[in-house]
Amino acid sequence: MEERDIATVAEIKDLLEENTVSWINVQGLGDENVLRELADLFSIHALALEDVVNVPQRPKVERYDEHTLCITRMALVGDRGIEPEQVSVFISPNYVLTFQERCGDVFDPIRNRIRQGRPVIRSSGPSYLAYALLDAVIDGYYPLLETFGERLEALEDEILGNPQPVILHEIHKSKGDLLALRRAIWPQREAINALIRDENPLITKTVRLYLRDCYDHCVQIMDAIETYRELAGGLMDVYLSSVDNRQNEVMKVLTIMASIFIPLTFLAGIYGMNFEHMPELHFAWGYPFLLAVMFLLTVAMVVYFRRKGWLGWQQNEPRDRND
Amino acid sequence: MEERDIATVAEIKDLLEENTVSWINVQGLGDENVLRELADLFSIHALALEDVVNVPQRPKVERYDEHTLCITRMALVGDRGIEPEQVSVFISPNYVLTFQERCGDVFDPIRNRIRQGRPVIRSSGPSYLAYALLDAVIDGYYPLLETFGERLEALEDEILGNPQPVILHEIHKSKGDLLALRRAIWPQREAINALIRDENPLITKTVRLYLRDCYDHCVQIMDAIETYRELAGGLMDVYLSSVDNRQNEVMKVLTIMASIFIPLTFLAGIYGMNFEHMPELHFAWGYPFLLAVMFLLTVAMVVYFRRKGWLGWQQNEPRDRND
Amino acid sequence: MEERDIATVAEIKDLLEENTVSWINVQGLGDENVLRELADLFSIHALALEDVVNVPQRPKVERYDEHTLCITRMALVGDRGIEPEQVSVFISPNYVLTFQERCGDVFDPIRNRIRQGRPVIRSSGPSYLAYALLDAVIDGYYPLLETFGERLEALEDEILGNPQPVILHEIHKSKGDLLALRRAIWPQREAINALIRDENPLITKTVRLYLRDCYDHCVQIMDAIETYRELAGGLMDVYLSSVDNRQNEVMKVLTIMASIFIPLTFLAGIYGMNFEHMPELHFAWGYPFLLAVMFLLTVAMVVYFRRKGWLGWQQNEPRDRND
Amino acid sequence: MEERDIATVAEIKDLLEENTVSWINVQGLGDENVLRELADLFSIHALALEDVVNVPQRPKVERYDEHTLCITRMALVGDRGIEPEQVSVFISPNYVLTFQERCGDVFDPIRNRIRQGRPVIRSSGPSYLAYALLDAVIDGYYPLLETFGERLEALEDEILGNPQPVILHEIHKSKGDLLALRRAIWPQREAINALIRDENPLITKTVRLYLRDCYDHCVQIMDAIETYRELAGGLMDVYLSSVDNRQNEVMKVLTIMASIFIPLTFLAGIYGMNFEHMPELHFAWGYPFLLAVMFLLTVAMVVYFRRKGWLGWQQNEPRDRND
Amino acid sequence: MEERDIATVAEIKDLLEENTVSWINVQGLGDENVLRELADLFSIHALALEDVVNVPQRPKVERYDEHTLCITRMALVGDRGIEPEQVSVFISPNYVLTFQERCGDVFDPIRNRIRQGRPVIRSSGPSYLAYALLDAVIDGYYPLLETFGERLEALEDEILGNPQPVILHEIHKSKGDLLALRRAIWPQREAINALIRDENPLITKTVRLYLRDCYDHCVQIMDAIETYRELAGGLMDVYLSSVDNRQNEVMKVLTIMASIFIPLTFLAGIYGMNFEHMPELHFAWGYPFLLAVMFLLTVAMVVYFRRKGWLGWQQNEPRDRND
Repeated sequence: MEERDIATVAEIKDLLEENTVSWINVQGLGDENVLRELADLFSIHALALEDVVNVPQRPKVERYDEHTLCITRMALVGDRGIEPEQVSVFISPNYVLTFQERCGDVFDPIRNRIRQGRPVIRSSGPSYLAYALLDAVIDGYYPLLETFGERLEALEDEILGNPQPVILHEIHKSKGDLLALRRAIWPQREAINALIRDENPLITKTVRLYLRDCYDHCVQIMDAIETYRELAGGLMDVYLSSVDNRQNEVMKVLTIMASIFIPLTFLAGIYGMNFEHMPELHFAWGYPFLLAVMFLLTVAMVVYFRRKGWLGWQQNEPRDRND
Repeated sequence: MEERDIATVAEIKDLLEENTVSWINVQGLGDENVLRELADLFSIHALALEDVVNVPQRPKVERYDEHTLCITRMALVGDRGIEPEQVSVFISPNYVLTFQERCGDVFDPIRNRIRQGRPVIRSSGPSYLAYALLDAVIDGYYPLLETFGERLEALEDEILGNPQPVILHEIHKSKGDLLALRRAIWPQREAINALIRDENPLITKTVRLYLRDCYDHCVQIMDAIETYRELAGGLMDVYLSSVDNRQNEVMKVLTIMASIFIPLTFLAGIYGMNFEHMPELHFAWGYPFLLAVMFLLTVAMVVYFRRKGWLGWQQNEPRDRND
Repeated sequence: MEERDIATVAEIKDLLEENTVSWINVQGLGDENVLRELADLFSIHALALEDVVNVPQRPKVERYDEHTLCITRMALVGDRGIEPEQVSVFISPNYVLTFQERCGDVFDPIRNRIRQGRPVIRSSGPSYLAYALLDAVIDGYYPLLETFGERLEALEDEILGNPQPVILHEIHKSKGDLLALRRAIWPQREAINALIRDENPLITKTVRLYLRDCYDHCVQIMDAIETYRELAGGLMDVYLSSVDNRQNEVMKVLTIMASIFIPLTFLAGIYGMNFEHMPELHFAWGYPFLLAVMFLLTVAMVVYFRRKGWLGWQQNEPRDRND
Repeated sequence: MEERDIATVAEIKDLLEENTVSWINVQGLGDENVLRELADLFSIHALALEDVVNVPQRPKVERYDEHTLCITRMALVGDRGIEPEQVSVFISPNYVLTFQERCGDVFDPIRNRIRQGRPVIRSSGPSYLAYALLDAVIDGYYPLLETFGERLEALEDEILGNPQPVILHEIHKSKGDLLALRRAIWPQREAINALIRDENPLITKTVRLYLRDCYDHCVQIMDAIETYRELAGGLMDVYLSSVDNRQNEVMKVLTIMASIFIPLTFLAGIYGMNFEHMPELHFAWGYPFLLAVMFLLTVAMVVYFRRKGWLGWQQNEPRDRND
Repeated sequence: MEERDIATVAEIKDLLEENTVSWINVQGLGDENVLRELADLFSIHALALEDVVNVPQRPKVERYDEHTLCITRMALVGDRGIEPEQVSVFISPNYVLTFQERCGDVFDPIRNRIRQGRPVIRSSGPSYLAYALLDAVIDGYYPLLETFGERLEALEDEILGNPQPVILHEIHKSKGDLLALRRAIWPQREAINALIRDENPLITKTVRLYLRDCYDHCVQIMDAIETYRELAGGLMDVYLSSVDNRQNEVMKVLTIMASIFIPLTFLAGIYGMNFEHMPELHFAWGYPFLLAVMFLLTVAMVVYFRRKGWLGWQQNEPRDRND
């Protein structure tokens, strides 16, 4: 096993002439000339080169005479949510050629396995190497999914505790991210399936078995994404309903205040009138008696509202969810 | 029939050499060395071992040269809702090897049937034993479904009686649990179907018939899950609407109180004014007359609100649902 | 044609030996011994017997060596909504064996047709008889569907006239019933399709034509169920919106009352103050002038609210829907 | 070409014996005897006759030995929304037999084309005639769809201008009508497809091409129906939101009135108190000063509400949608 | 290569006789005579001519003996949202005949490529030219999709900043446009797929590869449309919830004002009563003491509402979404 940093395309030419399997990894798609030279060297079809350069493409497998192109997408967390990065893999009998959009280290574990001389990866030909690359890309989705699980649980706790308008935006953003993820993983599954089903001689029977495992992972990731999407949709309902409950609480405070004090104010208004002939005004116990009536009225109202459960809403706080 | 507790992998080796069908059940996946020894003994493929160890896997059937691996999932009720537990079954012509995540007793009925010497299960070879295990796993879903039916009915009764915000959280949790169940049972159906359709020589024609029965149960469980999901969705609507109705009630109380007393207070305010020339104030019957007017106004308002059905809302209580 | 009430299984044995087509109808599944004897007599497979006894099973067609089992479900209206009842039909070259959960008279029309000696049903062999039974079961869904149509129309009228909280519960219950119906009819269609497509020698070409008709009825029933489900969903929206409208009306009454009387009360409050230097209080026309101002203010408010359409809401009553 | 009004079934018999293609159109399904005679004459299968008579049937194609029955549905606008009418077409090598539920003139254009002696329709045999009839039925859906487009646009304009509760009922009714239309057109497409795909010798290759065109029309109509359904669903959201906005407006008026006048009334109440020692009451400028304070308070409130955008809601009127 | 403006159909006739590949582009469908002459010249089937003229047709591929008709739809932004324009392409071994509804310049890039003598497009026969035309039509959707992305982001920002009722109408309009786009692109994908799959000798193997690329673009566009539709649906929820929040704010202002001032007004009302025996009225410190009580009450209310978070709602403004 040899490992080299290559600066010019000419060096690759020498490499390929040797009777070995080469893995050439191109990082960054900026230099058009290098890409064109590579395309000439590896006889890459114009359409294939376009697919490699015009990112993001839909993950797919395209078979050309010389090699099979497999376009796949990594899921990276960027500044504005999920930022998928395209990885294009050309598989041929004697080389594996990969293109990455940006420099990244997602393939480091594979490099290490090759360096450590793990027998399987070094003896199984280019299709196993291609599988290992695909597998690394797919496995990169798992940690992301876990963060989603945690995000949604955190949101649920927040909704239970202190629902704020900003939560809806976060749910909306989560849904958008899950949508982007689904859009990335769905065609990946189809592409891997195409690799398994097509009678492509490049893919050995052993690798087909491994690809099936990879396919199962795709399906598992899709399952998880769908579950998270449904949970996110459900959270939105719970949030909206807790907003409704808050509004209900506001309404109740208003109603209770108004229902208690408006009748009392009316009574006070009665005895603030200036009629000449209002006998009550001259009673010695008129004032204390009225105060007592007012007090009793208030008590009656409080009892009424408590019966209705409007003053007992403090007890309606969500119970412990594990009950 | 013999039944043994086995402590070391070497003992199994002896067992397998005899010309019988052995069922080896491994409980717990903790000891890596034992698992590796077992993998060597049964020539388990690296991918298969991974599937057994890295739980939870999606239920599936994978055919290897030596044996067929069938991964399935039990549904157990744990502390945080549904906790599926993976059961991996290797079927070969002369042994059935099962792995359970944790120690459990879901297979006790089968053990008993073997111990009792039921002819079918002891004479039908390993594929029938595998069917019996699968069937036991699938049948474990039924009691769970029943509890769901009861939970949803209890929630419906609570909504009819005394809707509380916590109900929405319980509906949300039920929906999440049903989602998890569906995610567990859906691929199970596909796996059983694969066992039936594939020309797998391990599965005898008789067992195929039994597996078809098992498949029907899967479909029935899925049907029930879908029904419960739709009912849970409907319950959420009913709950939200009953919250709306409560809010409506609050609004009506406020409106009735305000509509009756605000005009009366205004009238009292009029005669509380200090104009010098207010002839009414000097009438002997001014005060009683005003009180009468106020009383009539109140009666008119009450009649008006009763006509509108706002004071009659006590009669709008949900009628008996079986009417 | 002979018709007998049979009490013991032995009597059936004699019957079957004759060179005729027999229809044996078993009502009720309670007596385990009888069932076991019947199973022995007709060599019913253990799984088939289980399907017959453990109701409700999903409707399906299962082919055994001796006969074909066709499980179907009637739709009966019970105390708690739709209560499906399972009917199991075994078809063989010389007998038709049916099991009903409970005693019922759904097969009376067929009995009558046989008694009347209608040529088709008596000369077409057991598969035609089985078709006639299936057809009777399927046709039993039509009157049920009609009641649904009427229920939904009645609910719509109620929502238009006087929406009550109980309506939502009725819509919810209707949706649940429709769900149960769909769950019953959906697999029925598949089962009939299986009977048509499978190269089952028991089913003659003529009967296949009749079964296709039966299949069309299933599809028609499913269509109607889907339509009713969508209508029920739409009704829920209309109901919720009419609740909103009612709330709006309550709010408007409150707002109008408050907006008119609060400013007037304020004016009255002004002239109820006890400042020494309030010249207006001494004007001879102060009081009538203030009353006039108050009257004008009220008129202005009423005009304003009428312009806004808030006092004209009586005119917004739903117009005649057939306009 | 001959055209006759036929009163008795016997006359048809003579017609058929001639070596020509006859089109017999039966209007109305009332007279059972005539139908039975026709069935005998044309050897119509009992099931086929049932399908013709028991309207409405699901559109379908059924092949019998003598002829092919094609059931299709016209869409007519009746008093209670869309009223589909069934047209049944029997195609055989030497006649086309059509049954209409009611008398109608949907086939007049075809009659005219035949009368005018258009070569295609008169020389292409019965299957072309059947195609022409089907095409006329399908084309009858287009004007209906246009009225839907207009209805939905009118509703949208109304919602933008003056949303009334009745609009929701109209949207609900539109959705029901679209549902009925979809239920009518969906199986029609399948039926036409069956005519194209089946190796039916009655359908010539040329007519197959024409039927494909007819099939495309079906798909186009279904597309349009789906679009209208989604638009109607969207309209409902827009309507509900505009109701919310109206309610918001009501709430704002109430809040503004209450927030301005309640504090002012409180101030007036203060100086309406009868304490002996209230120095302000004796200030010469007390009254004008208080009035000034009240005025400033009002201005402050108005400014505050204007800042919040609550008094500026007149400016939030929906802008011109074509901006 | 020659390029000509052609005025009469006769000129085309001469062209076709030469042994070359001709591309005839007809702009505008107004002149019936010209169309009829063209139909005669190119032996266009009556149905094909109808499809060309009666716009808009559903995109499709129809194979005739002489040529293959491919109907496709451009997406143009018109005055009332998206206005699709139909482009009909006839492909035959020696000509490509295109019809455009209106004059447009969407094909200018292709014309330039031909003029510049790009080898691929000039040497690959009519099917490559047809592919290039289709590709240009499909690529025309990308800029449109970008504007949608921007529109939705702009709407989201507006909702976060200052939600106005008009936003809902804009979301509704966006959803309608996306629906129209989907309706245009969906059958396009099927049509291209039909071109690839059908054993059409006109389509060379090379062109099939290019068409597959075109097909991938269609799928990508559909993916993007679905994503935008879901995002638009989510935006509607966010908007409705922000309207709810605004209403909540209004309610809070009303409740706070009323809850603070109604009790105070009641207290003022008490001491505005004219009872003879009200000792407080004669206390020297009665008035200042009452004012102090009122002040303390107000402070208590403010503290209470602040604790509830109702006066702290200014802090609940949506946080920066990139946190």
